[in-house]
Amino acid sequence: MPTAGILVIGNEILSGKVVDSNSPYLCKQLRALGVDVEQITTIPDVIETIASEVREMSRRFDYVITSGGVGPTHDDVTMDGIAAAFERPIESNPVIETRLRECSKGELNESQLKMAKVPAGAAFIDSDHLWIPLVVVENVYIFPGIPELLQKKFEGVRDRFSGVPYVLRRIYVNQFEHEIADALNDLLEEFPKLMLGSYPKIREENFKVLLTLESRDADYAQRALDSLLGRLLPSAVHKAE
Amino acid sequence: MPTAGILVIGNEILSGKVVDSNSPYLCKQLRALGVDVEQITTIPDVIETIASEVREMSRRFDYVITSGGVGPTHDDVTMDGIAAAFERPIESNPVIETRLRECSKGELNESQLKMAKVPAGAAFIDSDHLWIPLVVVENVYIFPGIPELLQKKFEGVRDRFSGVPYVLRRIYVNQFEHEIADALNDLLEEFPKLMLGSYPKIREENFKVLLTLESRDADYAQRALDSLLGRLLPSAVHKAE
Repeated sequence: MPTAGILVIGNEILSGKVVDSNSPYLCKQLRALGVDVEQITTIPDVIETIASEVREMSRRFDYVITSGGVGPTHDDVTMDGIAAAFERPIESNPVIETRLRECSKGELNESQLKMAKVPAGAAFIDSDHLWIPLVVVENVYIFPGIPELLQKKFEGVRDRFSGVPYVLRRIYVNQFEHEIADALNDLLEEFPKLMLGSYPKIREENFKVLLTLESRDADYAQRALDSLLGRLLPSAVHKAE
Repeated sequence: MPTAGILVIGNEILSGKVVDSNSPYLCKQLRALGVDVEQITTIPDVIETIASEVREMSRRFDYVITSGGVGPTHDDVTMDGIAAAFERPIESNPVIETRLRECSKGELNESQLKMAKVPAGAAFIDSDHLWIPLVVVENVYIFPGIPELLQKKFEGVRDRFSGVPYVLRRIYVNQFEHEIADALNDLLEEFPKLMLGSYPKIREENFKVLLTLESRDADYAQRALDSLLGRLLPSAVHKAE
């Protein structure tokens, strides 16, 4: 199954001024497409840091998705970082430059021209809904940091990312984790390929633990669900779905 | 100034089922304390992955804060990962075991005893408000994943983390980024130590870009703010604070 790493670039996240909503969005979307997100990392707008993280993630995952640092200002250095990761020069791309000219009334200034600069040999994914095409360097897909724009861009290219999606089943249990831990361990011995999550909740009225059972095989998930329901006290199961 | 890395451990974040609220909380808190968060990484509940990330972060940052993976179930392997990072054995700690026994009515079962197991040679930070003391291994501070518990624990030990806090000033500008990019670059030449952020907003009625000016020196931040206000068109400044 394809794997992905998400690289969030931006001082504003690390300093606590902005909450990153892009990685939760991407995790949900990629999950639904059957792509396994294996790491999310947030780093500052520093060229060397971006370069080393991109190089490492590109080696380890099938897809790398970056978010942020592609605007016209001094702190937008993502393109430089990705160029450095693959030892490529930065060059102005004529396709993007033309798009920018079409949208601008007058001449482009220095900061607008900056937005046409991409690593040499970059690929582009275009779609009717996009103002500027998505820039791709090797297996690195470069998205803007503004959530509305990132989502619009992802919608335009989502068919590029695909795998077999997971089936998710849930059991809401009205016992403490330590009381059901043995049942969970036994379940995993019977269903070793199951992805089993156990999430204690406080301040919930009707249950104490949410159990999630996931598999790419719907039948396997159903059999595991049935097996676990058989292992729990019927009175302890608030709901199964 | 002290630096920190945050390591979020949990499959539920990567699969998009749960949105991580711990790292935004920690970033805000540490910022207010004057500690620079330089990286946030989210990884799955896998011992080897935890071990290698902890080793790397421990080497690079003054403080490492982990969140998640410390409960009683099969997928709680953070202690094992941290023990492996520093090549220490895991052992049952008598202090924590006693606390657990005090809170439990009967005998402790296997999964409850698991919560007393920590890397050998761990340190503990205790406070009146904590049920179980915070476990610290070298410079790694181990927090639970449940946000209410993490926050309670952090509140109990926050005076351990300290530096000189930043002063944050803001200007709300009613022009596009590319129209003010030159002014920002000139400002940074005059104030090279300023942390300057530029955040375009769409769907805001009264401004198009939020500029943030930060420094640990309040006077430096004020002088930079005044200088930037002098560089912008007065009619383009919606608000400065």
